Amino acid sequence: MLPFIRNDLAQFQAYAPHPGGDSGSPVASEIILDRLDTNECPYDLPLELKQKLAWAYQHEIETNRYPDGSHTTLKDAIVNYVNRGVPDAESPVNSTNLCVGNGSDELIRSLLIATCLGGEGSILVANPTFSMYGILAKTLGIPVVKIGRCEDNFEMDLAAAQNAIEHPEKAPIRVVFVVHPNSPTANALTEAEINWLKSLPREVLVVIDEAYFEFSQTTLLGELLQHPNWVILRTFSKAFRLAGLRVGYAIAHPDFIAILEKVRLPYNLPSFSLLAAELALSYQDQLLTVIPEILAQRRLLVDAIIQHPQLKVWPSNANFVYVRPKSLESEDLARDTDKILDQVLQTLKSQGTLIRQTGGGLRITVGTPEENQRTIERINLLSVYP
Amino acid sequence: MLPFIRNDLAQFQAYAPHPGGDSGSPVASEIILDRLDTNECPYDLPLELKQKLAWAYQHEIETNRYPDGSHTTLKDAIVNYVNRGVPDAESPVNSTNLCVGNGSDELIRSLLIATCLGGEGSILVANPTFSMYGILAKTLGIPVVKIGRCEDNFEMDLAAAQNAIEHPEKAPIRVVFVVHPNSPTANALTEAEINWLKSLPREVLVVIDEAYFEFSQTTLLGELLQHPNWVILRTFSKAFRLAGLRVGYAIAHPDFIAILEKVRLPYNLPSFSLLAAELALSYQDQLLTVIPEILAQRRLLVDAIIQHPQLKVWPSNANFVYVRPKSLESEDLARDTDKILDQVLQTLKSQGTLIRQTGGGLRITVGTPEENQRTIERINLLSVYP
Repeated sequence: MLPFIRNDLAQFQAYAPHPGGDSGSPVASEIILDRLDTNECPYDLPLELKQKLAWAYQHEIETNRYPDGSHTTLKDAIVNYVNRGVPDAESPVNSTNLCVGNGSDELIRSLLIATCLGGEGSILVANPTFSMYGILAKTLGIPVVKIGRCEDNFEMDLAAAQNAIEHPEKAPIRVVFVVHPNSPTANALTEAEINWLKSLPREVLVVIDEAYFEFSQTTLLGELLQHPNWVILRTFSKAFRLAGLRVGYAIAHPDFIAILEKVRLPYNLPSFSLLAAELALSYQDQLLTVIPEILAQRRLLVDAIIQHPQLKVWPSNANFVYVRPKSLESEDLARDTDKILDQVLQTLKSQGTLIRQTGGGLRITVGTPEENQRTIERINLLSVYP
Repeated sequence: MLPFIRNDLAQFQAYAPHPGGDSGSPVASEIILDRLDTNECPYDLPLELKQKLAWAYQHEIETNRYPDGSHTTLKDAIVNYVNRGVPDAESPVNSTNLCVGNGSDELIRSLLIATCLGGEGSILVANPTFSMYGILAKTLGIPVVKIGRCEDNFEMDLAAAQNAIEHPEKAPIRVVFVVHPNSPTANALTEAEINWLKSLPREVLVVIDEAYFEFSQTTLLGELLQHPNWVILRTFSKAFRLAGLRVGYAIAHPDFIAILEKVRLPYNLPSFSLLAAELALSYQDQLLTVIPEILAQRRLLVDAIIQHPQLKVWPSNANFVYVRPKSLESEDLARDTDKILDQVLQTLKSQGTLIRQTGGGLRITVGTPEENQRTIERINLLSVYP
């Protein structure tokens, strides 16, 4: 190990970014891959929007000049979009409530830097959940406290959560991360969870990641402004179809936003990404028309998997469904869960469906009707365990 | 102050990103602004390359899919480019020596995280220099030790540097930052500086920022592989004209690269930026043909400013020149330097030339021949101080 590197990073396991399907057994090259493993929208931007964007790049962007580091135009557009979804029209969000990042990832890193660094705090996550919270915390040397979830509906173990807040083992819990709805388990926050979040002291930052808001249509935004210790994360990577261009945003109290703005890289967003996000918001109605189809397709996927004698599937509030083998209920087989899951994953992959193994289960993104149909047919034929 | 925010961030001064010319006195809207304030290449990509890039976006990028998080194709192209410049063909760089970032900024942050976090180290900078090293360190709570430079040729004060290494005030110096050539002062590292860098113990990471390499044609790459504690930073933002798309890279020992890869955001580069950097390298010969013109223009700029009775200008190894008022040599006037500089800045701005006030001087980027000609005419007429 090189002597200038922090000792605690040597064993650290990073997030494995992927071009889908490049791990494990190779797939025959003639197979079309249905990429249902990363919760993307299955549709690219419509051709005419890609043309508009390409035109705008050629005529409006000076590639040689640094991008607009203030994000003013994009922020104004986000304000309009976000306020459409706020029930209470008297407390609208404005641009001082917004920070835009290179995907939500950069915002998660920024808020960890702003709060927990230097031994000032730990973070709390309820597993299974989005792995980047814990991974980014560890890169920064920030302790991660993990609690579990109820197996019935994946509600957080609130007693354990409260206990972690009241009796911290290392640094005090300074940030609580929740996803609304959660990934990979697809459940929205319950009333009990929301009440618990409301009860947290103002020294604890509550991060509500609403990456899947456009699919769930459930948000805590209406209550955000009454809670200076809450921050909501949103993204253009899912319903807005811009995963390739990396744009996310945080909505929070102006004082916290001011700090996030100081912490972020000054030119964190390329000109082309800024332009694309602005364009996506201009055509939001058109882009979001596929949501009802995706929700209907989700219904088909769930209804099909429910029929499988060896699989359990949960209700979903997002653009993906979560599945576990029923064998988990048998102690003998539970020991082999990872092996069983991996076999399912590899079988589906060899047939052309990529899904994700995570948190002791399988996460399947809702794809196009054709992709879902193929996936249903493949799952129907699966022998999950002996 | 919100109680979950780190105390030391409250007073922290961030880097001010800019659309150029939006601070200070307004500029009459009919004036064409010559943007010589951010060391960009004055030329956008040629029209046919913008067309190619726009075409490739429409036909090769799926906007809805996450980008290639492995950067494999771009790394291969960078390897070819970088090895062209290595004198010793027996020790070529390969892709295990490379990490690609969202501009060099992200790489600077990553390497600070990898080395100094949690009280493990301080950084050393010789002012004036690129301000982001210190700014990013402070966001992470990392102490910044500042030393000065010789006024004649801006060589670092090596005695002070050695003293800082041997007698650290807080945490030991874990990272030394140098720019080769330095910004804003435009000087390449001297032999004495290079020898000092070679003498540093292997516990100290040496960051050699070669952002302006294509203009200076001087590099330490040939010696990099013999120094596991050296890292070279390069960028596509300057000579390659991609400032708007944010791509930089680090070249270092594979063990350090492995850590930088773990620390970086998994999808740090948008698909469009990856594509643009690949394209820029494919057309490197065409893009770099403007370098001789810029160097010739730099000569004209220096020769003109030398004639000014109240200005001192230094030799430059980069695409910018550094200027100070001669009044610095008079104690009375030296006290007013900032005011004098600001007046010069505002005068030039009102006439249409944007330059940068930094480090007790003025940094002027070499622009197009027309921009430089206007700037020379304006400088000729300047009364810098009474």
